[in-house]
Amino acid sequence: MNFNSVIVRYGEIALKGKNRRTFEQKLLSDIDRFLRARHIDFSKISLRMGRIYIKGIETLPPLEKVFGIYSYSPALEIEKDYETLKKKVVEFFSLFEGAASFRVSCQRIDKNFPYNSMVVERSLGEIIFEETKTPVNLKEPAVNFQVEIGEDSIYIFTGKVKGFAGLPYGTAGKLVSLISAGIDSPVATFLMMKRGVEPILVHFKISESDARKVRKLKRILEDYSAGREIKLYEIPRDDIFKGNFATLYNNRKIHPYICVICKYLMHTKAAEIARTEKALGFITGDNLAQVASQTLKNLFAYRTVSGLPVYSPLISFEKEETIKIAKKIGTYEISITKSTGCIPPKNPKTGVKIENFQNILEETGLA
Amino acid sequence: MNFNSVIVRYGEIALKGKNRRTFEQKLLSDIDRFLRARHIDFSKISLRMGRIYIKGIETLPPLEKVFGIYSYSPALEIEKDYETLKKKVVEFFSLFEGAASFRVSCQRIDKNFPYNSMVVERSLGEIIFEETKTPVNLKEPAVNFQVEIGEDSIYIFTGKVKGFAGLPYGTAGKLVSLISAGIDSPVATFLMMKRGVEPILVHFKISESDARKVRKLKRILEDYSAGREIKLYEIPRDDIFKGNFATLYNNRKIHPYICVICKYLMHTKAAEIARTEKALGFITGDNLAQVASQTLKNLFAYRTVSGLPVYSPLISFEKEETIKIAKKIGTYEISITKSTGCIPPKNPKTGVKIENFQNILEETGLA
Repeated sequence: MNFNSVIVRYGEIALKGKNRRTFEQKLLSDIDRFLRARHIDFSKISLRMGRIYIKGIETLPPLEKVFGIYSYSPALEIEKDYETLKKKVVEFFSLFEGAASFRVSCQRIDKNFPYNSMVVERSLGEIIFEETKTPVNLKEPAVNFQVEIGEDSIYIFTGKVKGFAGLPYGTAGKLVSLISAGIDSPVATFLMMKRGVEPILVHFKISESDARKVRKLKRILEDYSAGREIKLYEIPRDDIFKGNFATLYNNRKIHPYICVICKYLMHTKAAEIARTEKALGFITGDNLAQVASQTLKNLFAYRTVSGLPVYSPLISFEKEETIKIAKKIGTYEISITKSTGCIPPKNPKTGVKIENFQNILEETGLA
Repeated sequence: MNFNSVIVRYGEIALKGKNRRTFEQKLLSDIDRFLRARHIDFSKISLRMGRIYIKGIETLPPLEKVFGIYSYSPALEIEKDYETLKKKVVEFFSLFEGAASFRVSCQRIDKNFPYNSMVVERSLGEIIFEETKTPVNLKEPAVNFQVEIGEDSIYIFTGKVKGFAGLPYGTAGKLVSLISAGIDSPVATFLMMKRGVEPILVHFKISESDARKVRKLKRILEDYSAGREIKLYEIPRDDIFKGNFATLYNNRKIHPYICVICKYLMHTKAAEIARTEKALGFITGDNLAQVASQTLKNLFAYRTVSGLPVYSPLISFEKEETIKIAKKIGTYEISITKSTGCIPPKNPKTGVKIENFQNILEETGLA
């Protein structure tokens, strides 16, 4: 057995003044819920000195998927006894057989422990060296062996897994996320979830294959919602176009405006859902100038129609930045699979004039 | 003389279909303007095969500050003659004396050049090795020596400097940026500029020391505006508070709402400027849950008041991400200098109810 516990570090949420305890308790219960949802057994989870300790754990959980966590270390918890520590340290080190070099760092939280950090570091270093002949390297060790002498036990660990930081899921409140089967909107949703938002997904359904992709994307996003289900509304396109989509799409005058009209109608419809769900605004994957139709003029034509705030975390991203996150969180592979989606016009309007646009909406009975 | 030219690469803008030429010409003239603004002499700047060549340049310019550029390489341009190339290559290599290893990579754009890439690579490699005894390493060379055989000359270069990518300055249109002396809003402005936005800065002036910082921040941002001036409006706080700031700040009932009221009034006032300037929305440094008052409820209370779209590229950032960019672009050191700014309440409202907020605005005559 290599690991039986995890030490979890969180940052920002510890700074929240009087809200600190609320946030800590939320993170604690999120981790608990996250583990249970994955059927990962553990004996205890507790908060101590600005860290969270998960004890008696049998499988290493992907805790980077819990927002609010800065980093975590899979650790071996042993009883607080110096002789046991010396024995276990050598056993533990066998995992790193063949390592080029090592170092021992000790943090003594329990100041009553009879040996101080420097003594522990030096003597454990000597023991490991004698047993394995691995050379010590204090500056750039291949293995950084860490020993934490806590209040009730000792933890041995070597590495840190970085989390996404952020804030515990749902602590910020609800936003309606306009989600498509593409690359951008799932990433935008993820980034807002990271800041504590519970998203209500609204998908404007064009085809069954697109909708299937969106359902898969929802499941990926649920990896990050601390074991909670994410709501998804599927709205048939005909609902928002009042059955006129094909006619409008094939109308030569209206065709170049179709994307902006579509977004306008989506925002209008999604505002109803936001009201029902008591959501305080929208998340969109809007990215300035990514495609020809994403101009300030076009965005102007629909971003204020709902009267609700619109949050677009990708607005200033380069495409590669979005793709990098999509790959990291697991949505990319789903987003790029082929499906029957909408076919944007070859020459979309890049500078929709708001007066013309209003006229078109009125003429078509969509306003 | 080590360098006499620069090869500039751009990416995204080349993909803009029929807009490609417009964008290329804009980037070309931005580079031209950028160099002139810095009094950097050069003999010619031209576009060829999806790259921009700056010739006869005397100082190496910080071209990463021109948006739209993906990367650039300071290069030595020589006449298209194989004997000259062989001589110059050795001279050029003397800059890297003591390098652990090298490789020569050749790109032959002019297919009429009598030696193909492989021949050039091999023979130049041999010459350098004989002269310097530096070993060749094809996989991970310390110096990657690149030779580009172009239409009218040969370029020798070794490295790439990464640009910020994005789109040429101002191509997206104008937005009003609500700028303070803090860390966030200058970074938010920078990121939107990177996507082609021309910002109109609006600062709500609380103190002369804050305003001085903002003027310095404007000058830093002007490093990235391709030699163009950025407009700055300074609005005295008393203008938006109708002279009542102190009274309201000291009113126990209103005090917890003061930040939200202030933002509300800023958005209202800035909308007038946006109309005058024909700007299509706002840029703000809003960041969800960064401080206690940046909640969805509070943002809700002011983000829609202007009826204009609001773009907040930092909305999902972790504070460290913002600081990293601030340091990179040069605004951080200015933002963190001490100044007399506003003192936010110790216990700000974190969940402003929109009805209460409207009542307060009406009671105070600010609505």
